[in-house]
Amino acid sequence: MRLAELSERSGVSTATIKYYLREGLVPPGRQVNARTAEYDDEHLRRLRLVRAMIQVGGLPVATVRDVLGHVDDESLGRTIRLGAALWALPQVPEPDAEDEYVRAAHLEADELLGTLGWSNARLLTTISPAYRSLVVAVAALRRLGYDWNAELLVSYARLMHRAAVLDLDFVETRESEPERIEAAVLGAILVEPMMQALHRLAQEEESARRYGFE
Amino acid sequence: MRLAELSERSGVSTATIKYYLREGLVPPGRQVNARTAEYDDEHLRRLRLVRAMIQVGGLPVATVRDVLGHVDDESLGRTIRLGAALWALPQVPEPDAEDEYVRAAHLEADELLGTLGWSNARLLTTISPAYRSLVVAVAALRRLGYDWNAELLVSYARLMHRAAVLDLDFVETRESEPERIEAAVLGAILVEPMMQALHRLAQEEESARRYGFE
Repeated sequence: MRLAELSERSGVSTATIKYYLREGLVPPGRQVNARTAEYDDEHLRRLRLVRAMIQVGGLPVATVRDVLGHVDDESLGRTIRLGAALWALPQVPEPDAEDEYVRAAHLEADELLGTLGWSNARLLTTISPAYRSLVVAVAALRRLGYDWNAELLVSYARLMHRAAVLDLDFVETRESEPERIEAAVLGAILVEPMMQALHRLAQEEESARRYGFE
Repeated sequence: MRLAELSERSGVSTATIKYYLREGLVPPGRQVNARTAEYDDEHLRRLRLVRAMIQVGGLPVATVRDVLGHVDDESLGRTIRLGAALWALPQVPEPDAEDEYVRAAHLEADELLGTLGWSNARLLTTISPAYRSLVVAVAALRRLGYDWNAELLVSYARLMHRAAVLDLDFVETRESEPERIEAAVLGAILVEPMMQALHRLAQEEESARRYGFE
């Protein structure tokens, strides 16, 4: 397809597509003559991914370039490739290791992973931004006097594991490996806001069931 | 307790507490003489809540004042009081009602609520920011060519309903009604980042189980 059709099918303006091409976020088309290039479904897919990261996820162009670098690195295995792509997304800063709540949260997070039997996640604790986010969130809750017990955290984690199974089952329905990697990155940006919206709707539903609208 | 002790126990500096007092985010202490006021556990709790909203949630002072106005409005029933407090939190903007994906997402969200039997949530669709967020998220996914089926959305929603049951069960362990309302607001700000961290950790765990680290 030509640039005009690519623009129409992706919903991205030709000026923006040219900008993405210049920035290397979308690979060049096949040049058919000096003034015209031909694009295919792979360009369309990539354009949707870039648009999701920039327009929906609000990521800066440099971050998008980092994420795509990992998405396209075929030398990596799938877990690492996907992990590297997701880890290039903006993350919470390193927590203060001297803080007593942070130290306690590390112990609590480690114990949680042990209870859950998440042995793979345990291998990644020194490098995983998700683990770091968990420590930061648990420390914040504890500092504010949220004195829930360890079983509650286990219950939330088991629900999130079931969500991860749904995520990966969906990713596996994609036909090619590049599509699977892209679906996983899109999911990380778009599925979380959807789950958060469902979570808040569910809270409204459950609250009304328990207490009515009085 | 005096201001110094309130500061020590809350981890909030005396200068910041004085600022919150001036802004009306924390109620004044009981004046024991011209220069000294006495504070109690209610002040401590309120200070933690304000700190969570401002320092962890990143909310502006005006928003915090709105949320607290609803938290403190004893004329409202619990569902509405809690809803009003949560709805005062920053929300996604109104989606473009003319957009074809937004219109389709409305139909899809309505059908989802019907399938789930969330009759209370259905009553709130015209006013609930959570419903609006769901429409925005579903429209974004569809626009990007995420062609999942309706059952997948139902599966995520059922998981989020179980999370909401955990949330409310925890809130009900708090002893007084003000503590329960505050725990619900804190939860909305702090539990979601924790669930998101667990979700990403679960993805890493599940991905490694399926594909190893190769």
